[in-house]
Amino acid sequence: MSIQRIDGLGIESSEPIYEGEVVDLSVVNYRRPNGLVVRREVIAHPGAVVMVPVDGARVLMVRQPREAVGEYLLELPAGKLDVPGEPPIACAKRELAEEVGRAADTWESLGGFYTAPAILEEYIHCFLATDLTEIAHEPIPEEEITVVPWPLADLDALIAEVHDAKSLIGLMRIARRLDGAGHLR
Amino acid sequence: MSIQRIDGLGIESSEPIYEGEVVDLSVVNYRRPNGLVVRREVIAHPGAVVMVPVDGARVLMVRQPREAVGEYLLELPAGKLDVPGEPPIACAKRELAEEVGRAADTWESLGGFYTAPAILEEYIHCFLATDLTEIAHEPIPEEEITVVPWPLADLDALIAEVHDAKSLIGLMRIARRLDGAGHLR
Repeated sequence: MSIQRIDGLGIESSEPIYEGEVVDLSVVNYRRPNGLVVRREVIAHPGAVVMVPVDGARVLMVRQPREAVGEYLLELPAGKLDVPGEPPIACAKRELAEEVGRAADTWESLGGFYTAPAILEEYIHCFLATDLTEIAHEPIPEEEITVVPWPLADLDALIAEVHDAKSLIGLMRIARRLDGAGHLR
Repeated sequence: MSIQRIDGLGIESSEPIYEGEVVDLSVVNYRRPNGLVVRREVIAHPGAVVMVPVDGARVLMVRQPREAVGEYLLELPAGKLDVPGEPPIACAKRELAEEVGRAADTWESLGGFYTAPAILEEYIHCFLATDLTEIAHEPIPEEEITVVPWPLADLDALIAEVHDAKSLIGLMRIARRLDGAGHLR
């Protein structure tokens, strides 16, 4: 039941509005299986990955300017699936290296989710990355990313600080797996 | 630290691309405090509310077609802040009545979050709604919303079924407050 396609959903017409670097916008008239036609503004998106990198007793967060909302946000490292055909786990490994300069020996899927399914196609794959090692990396200056290690023992305080949906989900998933001493089970 | 505005962020230029019913799209060149100009595709959005309605031992979910992603999704009831100036709590009360036909005597804020802050302005305010009573309501036929009551005792199974970010966050917030017998603390 969790993922149930709308069988018989048809596209009556689709008007491309804009093709951008990150998003494409179209206005689509869908024909539902019962015949009703509904108009939707749809933002195409290739999907993304978000990683929960746990380095011993700390989770590695990133802090970066998000101009669209006018704030510096504290987030888990993440990235778009912008290489066509690249599997999500390969993208996660690449982005973890780029954003926080770490490789992980152990990867575990923590599931996935749509960020704004009424309007945006984006589906985010979530991974736990452990057994980390530091690697050489060259941060992309324009991204102005700062790595913020945060003690797992203070995970509740971190969750209170975070206002980004994908990061909240990743952190709350691991919060349920911490033992009393703040170690990941 | 959690919400820190980017002081001195300027707008070098802004090109409106599309004004829609739900979203507006612009391409904006921002000037960062350090002088660097960055180009962003920005989707304006009025923000939204999501409610966790707990009716005794059950949480009231909704199931609806989401054409943009081609699926029926199981979600918490939610709605856009589409009445200018309307406080989020007033919107939450209105949407709870519209979508699930309930009024709540007790409301509690569960915080808020951005759904996709790299591209989308949307900020969602999350509320816990308890002490529910049934009220007369006329569902909007086009929305094809089905109310799905789910036992709180099976909340982990529900969280495994849900693939919508705002709903996962609302459910995981209350999961941490359930006692061993599945009652909300």
